[in-house]
Amino acid sequence: MTTAALLACDWGTTNLRAWSLDGAGRVVARRDFALGVSKLARGEAAARFAAEVRPALDADALPAVLCGMIGSNLGWTVAPYLEAPVGLDDLAGGLVAPEGSAGWVRIAPGVRADGLTAAGDVMRGEETQLFGWLELDPDRARGRHVVCHPGTHAKWMVVEDGRLTRFVTAMTGELFAVLRRHSVLGGEAPAEDAAAFGEGLAAAADGDALAARLFSARARVVGRGAPVESTPSYLSGLLIGAEAASVPKLLGVTPGTPIALLGDAALCALYRRALERRGMPCEVFDGEAAAVAGLFALYRKGIAR
Amino acid sequence: MTTAALLACDWGTTNLRAWSLDGAGRVVARRDFALGVSKLARGEAAARFAAEVRPALDADALPAVLCGMIGSNLGWTVAPYLEAPVGLDDLAGGLVAPEGSAGWVRIAPGVRADGLTAAGDVMRGEETQLFGWLELDPDRARGRHVVCHPGTHAKWMVVEDGRLTRFVTAMTGELFAVLRRHSVLGGEAPAEDAAAFGEGLAAAADGDALAARLFSARARVVGRGAPVESTPSYLSGLLIGAEAASVPKLLGVTPGTPIALLGDAALCALYRRALERRGMPCEVFDGEAAAVAGLFALYRKGIAR
Repeated sequence: MTTAALLACDWGTTNLRAWSLDGAGRVVARRDFALGVSKLARGEAAARFAAEVRPALDADALPAVLCGMIGSNLGWTVAPYLEAPVGLDDLAGGLVAPEGSAGWVRIAPGVRADGLTAAGDVMRGEETQLFGWLELDPDRARGRHVVCHPGTHAKWMVVEDGRLTRFVTAMTGELFAVLRRHSVLGGEAPAEDAAAFGEGLAAAADGDALAARLFSARARVVGRGAPVESTPSYLSGLLIGAEAASVPKLLGVTPGTPIALLGDAALCALYRRALERRGMPCEVFDGEAAAVAGLFALYRKGIAR
Repeated sequence: MTTAALLACDWGTTNLRAWSLDGAGRVVARRDFALGVSKLARGEAAARFAAEVRPALDADALPAVLCGMIGSNLGWTVAPYLEAPVGLDDLAGGLVAPEGSAGWVRIAPGVRADGLTAAGDVMRGEETQLFGWLELDPDRARGRHVVCHPGTHAKWMVVEDGRLTRFVTAMTGELFAVLRRHSVLGGEAPAEDAAAFGEGLAAAADGDALAARLFSARARVVGRGAPVESTPSYLSGLLIGAEAASVPKLLGVTPGTPIALLGDAALCALYRRALERRGMPCEVFDGEAAAVAGLFALYRKGIAR
């Protein structure tokens, strides 16, 4: 039987995903907890980590590395943002030992960058996945890579010679969720109508005037008689299409540039369709494997300090 | 005492606003009802109009003209869309007598146009306000006018020689409402922070990549320490700024073109700030006076047929 050497956690706003890893970074066990930081009472992170997470993975005595919103002011202990550009060594240097933890426990810092506006941009958690993805193939240590992590808050990241130099967050997933649940574009039908998704991609055009293009999802039904059940797919195509048309361009990503999509397979497939339509060839990678590799790399670098 | 000659109603999704008018179109009485078509059970419009609206305005025997969503398939009787371009005479020609009405009652048709996408665009109600605004000043009968009606679904309308030739709807108001209530950008603070509104206007840039620029409202707080109470104003500036930067351009409206803002005074003031910053001088007009004038004009033209 393999002996676990590390407890690795991606502790986000909604969920906590935990793995025990052996000394080579291979997964021994995996557990999900509905214990995101939005569900934590102030000050209880240490106690719940010790009482619920550690025992569930037989990891009472293991060193632990955590990334994600657990390092925010809503989490356990703040791990301050590092300013981009950052590399894996910077990230390991920014690990923070949280208050009241037993044994060797570290929380990864987030990253802050200039972004598109004066407000700048931030991430917590995706940086660890990104550096894990880089670790998984030594060929990625050099050159320029564009990595997109789709999701509630999609991250577009530019890596140059192993350092995260720029990134932009697009809240495409959250827009889809709130419009679908709470707006005149609502609908509970699954977003699986490939033709309507394609119509939405076309309607996105250059990604400008999104508030106006969104209304086309309504006009299409009341003015043109399209079935209302196809609205979620159309809306998904419109939002993902608008992101694909505008965000890469603002990051200086030109047609022909390959994009690495990192995350949920079904969502990555939708992004792939939107991006390849615009001449950006995509390859899809497993986000979970990247997260595990990133947490393990932070452990190796952090424990050696 | 003035004698009322007409019952005029703007009957929308959420509310019904009714006026009794004298023979010259002046308002005799006015009442609001929380009786939008979204609150009507199927088939009950005729009965509730007769039992609640008519008596409240002492208008049991008056002719009546109605505009807005009451002409949709959720309303009373469908008044089919007319295709733009349309003039006031076309609109009067499209008036529909609803089922089960007593006396002379007419519902105004909506208008459909090409819009920005293959889905086209639609309106119901704003066309009546627009033609009322034209009627209020004979100088508006000729030439080109650009009229913006801000709101939940803002309408941008181009009038040429008295005919509505093009329009685009931007769901800016609805985006603001759902993001504020249901997203990570939420907040109950009033949107009255003029400096944060200005920051949002600047962050809107060219109106592209809206899903990414929206996340700046979050990054501004967690990454730059801006007070979370200023988020609603920043969000409002960002959304209105993005509309001002993109929609006029797509309608061929160039800097220097005067814009007529028709609607709620406080909201029109925010649009004015966004548009004048981009070199489009604005004049604000009362939307209610325009609605009354439009309904009265439809009555005069309709009764003469």
